[in-house]
Amino acid sequence: MTDLADLARRADLAGLERWLEETPIRAIADELARLAPADRAVPFRLLPRDRALAVFEAFDPYAQQEALEGLRDDRFRQLVEDMDPDDRARLVGELPASVATRVLAGLSNRERAMTAALLGYPEESAGRIMTPEFVSLPDSMTVAEALERIRRVGSDAETVYMLPVTDNQRQLVGVVSLRQLVLSPADARVGNLMTTDIHHVHVTDDQEAAARLMQEADALALPVLDSEERLVGVITVDDAMEVLEAEDTEDLVLHGASRPLGRHYLAVSVFGLARSRALWLLVLILAAALTINVLQYFEDTLESVVTLALFIPLLIDTGGNSGAQASTVVVRAMAVGELRFGDLPRVVWREARVGLLLGTMLAAAGFLPVTLLFGADIGVIVSTTLVLVCTWATLLGSTLPMLANRLGVDPAVVSAPIITTLVDATGLVLYFLIARAVLGL
Amino acid sequence: MTDLADLARRADLAGLERWLEETPIRAIADELARLAPADRAVPFRLLPRDRALAVFEAFDPYAQQEALEGLRDDRFRQLVEDMDPDDRARLVGELPASVATRVLAGLSNRERAMTAALLGYPEESAGRIMTPEFVSLPDSMTVAEALERIRRVGSDAETVYMLPVTDNQRQLVGVVSLRQLVLSPADARVGNLMTTDIHHVHVTDDQEAAARLMQEADALALPVLDSEERLVGVITVDDAMEVLEAEDTEDLVLHGASRPLGRHYLAVSVFGLARSRALWLLVLILAAALTINVLQYFEDTLESVVTLALFIPLLIDTGGNSGAQASTVVVRAMAVGELRFGDLPRVVWREARVGLLLGTMLAAAGFLPVTLLFGADIGVIVSTTLVLVCTWATLLGSTLPMLANRLGVDPAVVSAPIITTLVDATGLVLYFLIARAVLGL
Repeated sequence: MTDLADLARRADLAGLERWLEETPIRAIADELARLAPADRAVPFRLLPRDRALAVFEAFDPYAQQEALEGLRDDRFRQLVEDMDPDDRARLVGELPASVATRVLAGLSNRERAMTAALLGYPEESAGRIMTPEFVSLPDSMTVAEALERIRRVGSDAETVYMLPVTDNQRQLVGVVSLRQLVLSPADARVGNLMTTDIHHVHVTDDQEAAARLMQEADALALPVLDSEERLVGVITVDDAMEVLEAEDTEDLVLHGASRPLGRHYLAVSVFGLARSRALWLLVLILAAALTINVLQYFEDTLESVVTLALFIPLLIDTGGNSGAQASTVVVRAMAVGELRFGDLPRVVWREARVGLLLGTMLAAAGFLPVTLLFGADIGVIVSTTLVLVCTWATLLGSTLPMLANRLGVDPAVVSAPIITTLVDATGLVLYFLIARAVLGL
Repeated sequence: MTDLADLARRADLAGLERWLEETPIRAIADELARLAPADRAVPFRLLPRDRALAVFEAFDPYAQQEALEGLRDDRFRQLVEDMDPDDRARLVGELPASVATRVLAGLSNRERAMTAALLGYPEESAGRIMTPEFVSLPDSMTVAEALERIRRVGSDAETVYMLPVTDNQRQLVGVVSLRQLVLSPADARVGNLMTTDIHHVHVTDDQEAAARLMQEADALALPVLDSEERLVGVITVDDAMEVLEAEDTEDLVLHGASRPLGRHYLAVSVFGLARSRALWLLVLILAAALTINVLQYFEDTLESVVTLALFIPLLIDTGGNSGAQASTVVVRAMAVGELRFGDLPRVVWREARVGLLLGTMLAAAGFLPVTLLFGADIGVIVSTTLVLVCTWATLLGSTLPMLANRLGVDPAVVSAPIITTLVDATGLVLYFLIARAVLGL
């Protein structure tokens, strides 16, 4: 493949146009996202209108903002007007206020009203990702009438595959799929075809919960109700997938003590990368400073038996690893809805035994080599500490995320790195208390 | 809500039947999955046939196997026959051979042939998750004929929303959506309506790549071709979401040095949990044993300045944390396709500066307090080590996963825990070399 970066740098317009013609939409979006923002403007402006919209929609909100900044007013307005209302709400939600105003100002009344309505819902709520452009059907309609309505208004809607059905009070009573309509006789009533065992969410419900519900139910769309139980929108499966991927990314990077970048890795500056990690690193080093106090407290013991220092990294690593194992598994089980707070006693009892088993296994494996190399006293001290530290770390790793969740804190925040650091200080206390007891110091 | 566990334990059949009637499918599946396998049989058998299938489809393959074991032959056969071929292939792929044979033996010839075909593709391949039951349209058909075909054969297909279009050599030439068909005049030709800028995969392609492609393209279905470029199946969006969630779970637990459980947390025994973590814990403690050698080598230095031991946990924690931060971000960027191996030099140059920035920040923050409490020598030693360890750990954390990926190893495997352990030993060497130089030992 010709190198886009190369073409853009050389400002080879003919080459760029040829490349843009030959390359599929997704690949264009991917390659543009890998360029520095300033280098994206020229190729983006060379795209014909319909392909520009498709590429634009594939960008993350930051790249969208940068693309908008490089456009003349008329193309700017056109792009924003053509977006789906929920995607536009996502973009505006991430923009600085001045740009956001410019985006909204350029819109037709109808599109502006829809986007403003979505922006009225809290961040991370189902209302933010639903589309208000859906087709609903009264239950009294026939299949022929329903198909006629879809033909008339369906081209504006984001999806027509799952159609909410309402009664004459405009209350949601079921859903019918386009497939059922197409497969059924023309005079059948929608009310007789619809499924009534359906899921729905409310506008203020959490996005992630809505997306997981859709995933579990294999639904292509999910009706969204307002506080008065009126149908106000529909969440489509593509937005649900995006929410789940964003949540999974967030969980993953939190496990690595970082913050989600929210955009393409290569598009984040070195300072941006450092900023996303600096706070956590500082918090963790402050917490780790506790280990200095612990070791200072036991400095006499350490001075009389320097050999004890040799095992410090191994013991705190093992504690950290057992804690991280327990916490990642529990955080994941909570995220996918397998565990609730009420399961805490069961989790404690299970994980205590898991920790004890693992600790005993490691102690059994380590006792002989340590005893042969460093003597029986050290062998006993290290083995006993391994059992206790593994059990303690596993318990902490499994229960802290559940407690955090109960207190409204994202459980992924108190996962691996925090637990590792907490286990370090407490593990060292255990180690030196055991050492003192065994050595009679 | 009445407690299912309670009803099942009391064998309260009337209560169970009432509960099963009042509870939505998803909630039934969730609650059953939380029970011990033996307790699930009775409530599952009480479900009417169509609801039993829906609940069964919501189970993971292990729970499906356990449910099948509790059934009489006729219901067993019925359940398996009613499954989608790709879901059935997934189930059979996870079953012990004896049960798998029983599952396949009970099937009609047509269903068995489809499942066997899917099982012929490698694990984790696109072929395993595609459905062979799709509706394709010749490009010469009119809209009216296409809708008629969908009506005739569409009830068996897993999806009819995205219909592959083929030419008279049965080669894929485009896709048309059911929505386009419904919105278009009856005499329009499919070939004129179809989109030709489409994505497809081959049967042996990786599942995750196929699923990410669908997600990025917001596609409801993705055509799958065999090695001779013939259309043989379609991947639907629900299966793609499942693959992505499974991959994300795997990445997440690998970051926590564990193995994915593959099933409901509460359904895994204590031994099962311990087994999923034991191997990694052993590997890591063996790697950590390297730190004992390093410290032994520097034991003289340690003995003459015991104060140096105080900073060991803090320094190795900080190294581990910077390494984990870099690796989680890079592993994620690779997973979602933002980084390729060719980007390695760019990543190295970026992350080296990030590490240097972060290390300098921590060193600057720590220099004064350490100097005041432990003297200028220790202050200089600790600060210098922080700068070097952060840079080194960040470099290692970002490059090792990319190298691993190049060698065909899942990058998540060499992420946080392995990197932490590697950084520990090397970080200690740096620390003591700097200490010796500064203290003139």
